[in-house]
Amino acid sequence: MPQKPSIPKGTRDFSPTEVAKRNYIIQTIKKHFEVFGFQPIETPSFENSETLMGKYGDEGDRLIFKILNSGDFISKVDDVTYSSKNSNSLIPKISEKALRYDLTVPFARYVVMHQNEIDFPFKRYQIQPVWRADRPQKGRFREFYQCDADVVGAKSLLQEVEFVRLYDAVFTDLGLKGTTIKLNNRKVLSGIAEAIGAKHLLIDFTVALDKLDKIGEEGVKKEMLAKGISENAIAKASPLFEMSGNSLEQLEQLKSLLVESEIGMEGIAELKEIIDGVEALGLESAKLQLDVTLARGLNYYTGAIYEVSAPEGVKMGSIGGGGRYDDLTGIFGLKDISGVGISFGLDRIYLVLEELGLFPESLSKSVEVLCVNFGKRESTAALKLVNQLRGKGIKSEVFPTSTKMQKQMKYANNRNIPFVVLIGEQELADGTFVVKNMASGEQQTFELAKPEVFIHTL
Amino acid sequence: MPQKPSIPKGTRDFSPTEVAKRNYIIQTIKKHFEVFGFQPIETPSFENSETLMGKYGDEGDRLIFKILNSGDFISKVDDVTYSSKNSNSLIPKISEKALRYDLTVPFARYVVMHQNEIDFPFKRYQIQPVWRADRPQKGRFREFYQCDADVVGAKSLLQEVEFVRLYDAVFTDLGLKGTTIKLNNRKVLSGIAEAIGAKHLLIDFTVALDKLDKIGEEGVKKEMLAKGISENAIAKASPLFEMSGNSLEQLEQLKSLLVESEIGMEGIAELKEIIDGVEALGLESAKLQLDVTLARGLNYYTGAIYEVSAPEGVKMGSIGGGGRYDDLTGIFGLKDISGVGISFGLDRIYLVLEELGLFPESLSKSVEVLCVNFGKRESTAALKLVNQLRGKGIKSEVFPTSTKMQKQMKYANNRNIPFVVLIGEQELADGTFVVKNMASGEQQTFELAKPEVFIHTL
Repeated sequence: MPQKPSIPKGTRDFSPTEVAKRNYIIQTIKKHFEVFGFQPIETPSFENSETLMGKYGDEGDRLIFKILNSGDFISKVDDVTYSSKNSNSLIPKISEKALRYDLTVPFARYVVMHQNEIDFPFKRYQIQPVWRADRPQKGRFREFYQCDADVVGAKSLLQEVEFVRLYDAVFTDLGLKGTTIKLNNRKVLSGIAEAIGAKHLLIDFTVALDKLDKIGEEGVKKEMLAKGISENAIAKASPLFEMSGNSLEQLEQLKSLLVESEIGMEGIAELKEIIDGVEALGLESAKLQLDVTLARGLNYYTGAIYEVSAPEGVKMGSIGGGGRYDDLTGIFGLKDISGVGISFGLDRIYLVLEELGLFPESLSKSVEVLCVNFGKRESTAALKLVNQLRGKGIKSEVFPTSTKMQKQMKYANNRNIPFVVLIGEQELADGTFVVKNMASGEQQTFELAKPEVFIHTL
Repeated sequence: MPQKPSIPKGTRDFSPTEVAKRNYIIQTIKKHFEVFGFQPIETPSFENSETLMGKYGDEGDRLIFKILNSGDFISKVDDVTYSSKNSNSLIPKISEKALRYDLTVPFARYVVMHQNEIDFPFKRYQIQPVWRADRPQKGRFREFYQCDADVVGAKSLLQEVEFVRLYDAVFTDLGLKGTTIKLNNRKVLSGIAEAIGAKHLLIDFTVALDKLDKIGEEGVKKEMLAKGISENAIAKASPLFEMSGNSLEQLEQLKSLLVESEIGMEGIAELKEIIDGVEALGLESAKLQLDVTLARGLNYYTGAIYEVSAPEGVKMGSIGGGGRYDDLTGIFGLKDISGVGISFGLDRIYLVLEELGLFPESLSKSVEVLCVNFGKRESTAALKLVNQLRGKGIKSEVFPTSTKMQKQMKYANNRNIPFVVLIGEQELADGTFVVKNMASGEQQTFELAKPEVFIHTL
């Protein structure tokens, strides 16, 4: 009995049309990464386990895919560990490698390993798949691409300005007008926690605040209470929920809350510099908006934080995010290397472009010209023509077998091929070929000796 | 103590220059795949183990990287299996997924799973990494890319002709002139084994013959003897070692040996059709050559076999190979789907281009223009200029910090950036910018209001 094939849950096959659409997004992102001066690197799909483990918290450790050692792996497990029959104790004995969980930790590892070859500031981009043993659900996969651009080794806020412009450039080019780039600064969040007397509960405070969009003001306050933040502190924080006006006006309102907090005022000054920098040049289609409730779950951000939301009316989580982290490479022994970066959410951008019908029509056209196969002599003439078309970069092919014409035309139809070329016995004798426009049904005759006349009509 | 980071043996980090060179090869291959009418698909990095296991022989099974099940995997192992402490018995209990070993088996799985969406003949290409737990050595890695193009669902030999042309087109475009595309047919090999009375030892016979290049005629004969092929049979096969003339002449010599073998004569007829087909159109820079000793290790080929060798004088194994297999999808329950395909050896092609100095100079240039950063006001003007350059697709950036000029110039030098733009206090006051050509040392002044004048010089 042959197997009925399937693929692991949370993974996907991509059809030609899907690959074309994904590549369209990736190529657009890549183009702007490069035009902004970022350089590509690639790292291995799997890393030594110690490079990854402990970098993403306990939950992250659990979600990392581990690779079984090759050979007679079990004979290397000592009897004491083996007799415990405990998965966590066994893992380090039978698995030394693990699949990449994100691109940031491998990048930090790369920077440390190659520090002597790198010219800092190092602007790198990386577009590669990552793997997580997460529970699969709509829009969440076990294998997915990350598209990251980061700068390491430069503390200037010029990078923060550049990243806002980069988001704007990519989304404008994709035709996705009206995105909102939300901006905040971890220092402002620290300042607020300090100002309201909840400094020791900073993480709980920011995690709760981050949920404002989802659970509303009351929900956030309730969660803060539950986490041990006092009613008094929460009351002090209430201006956060009542901010109004444009970004610069909101910054002014924040100032009154943070005037006593050194770190808070530093955050405000940074935000102002970024906002001013962006305004000096203007944006094409995106909107930059201060959002003091923006926290992002990750704990390694230390300065600016970004998150991009799709145009209004499209229900979708953030389609991009990032921020500054002051100590990217410290975990691998290289101190004081500041980094700042952003990420594009490929799968979500795909869904948004699909929903708004923004993928170019041309992506569904894989072949421009199909030559019908009428037999050996005819198909040799067809191959010669096709050879000339290909030389001009025109995607074209000869149907491989001289099967029924109807079947060949159906194939052209199904594959959405716009032009079908007919070279039958008569045409061969006349030195001509007939081109059928599949959309209009029109037919036109050209000379085999002058294919350029046809090429010019394309 | 921070860890000293490393990567798993047999894997590689790719620097920006290496990525650029690899992408140059990949993009060239891709361009021709598409112009020949092939469509891209992508499959998951890991497959269910039963999809892969047993498809590559025992050695292949051992070399497949297995992924440990998530969660408390060991509690699901029954006590009897566990107490055996045997790696092979444990694997299926603790690992359900495995990393892709090649692109052919996942492709067969794809065709069967998506047979109702596919328009046959299906011309697909796939360029993705594969993983093998092989002993790493020079030029052999545990993670490497395969670049495959296959057609399934068409038996006509027009495909075989097309693949020769495709090899020629790609290698010509890469500037790699003088490659040899060696061609043989498994039916000819079967015919020879039959004609010399060693039909039952076909695999041993072809495996030995395949080593002619490496171990010479005597070595091959010795190995055949050792495998139980009689001296008499080997003597009958000796015309194989003495073939001369061009491909069509060699075919004639083969005929006398194979005249009694139906399958052998079929192979000769196929080879003749392919060679005639290729000659009708001619090749640009490659040479097609019949090689009756070509066998290729894999047992699933049933018709034409290809192997491409680098231009003479370059010491390198084959840089491409492929062939026809009559029953690609049978293992997954879809019978009688014939396939034919070729593969490009990315890593070896890279080494050959490097050795011959064939990578375009432009690949080492990641950024075209760097603006020196002289401070906040100046850098805002520089950003405006850079913005206009980027709009024209020119890769450009502003140095992120207003550090010492010398340091910024050194960065431009190290990164091989050809033009450095200077906008200092004076230039800002004059509304100008100075461009320094890093190769010639020449400086030229332009107006900030007319960046297009500079752009036209690029």
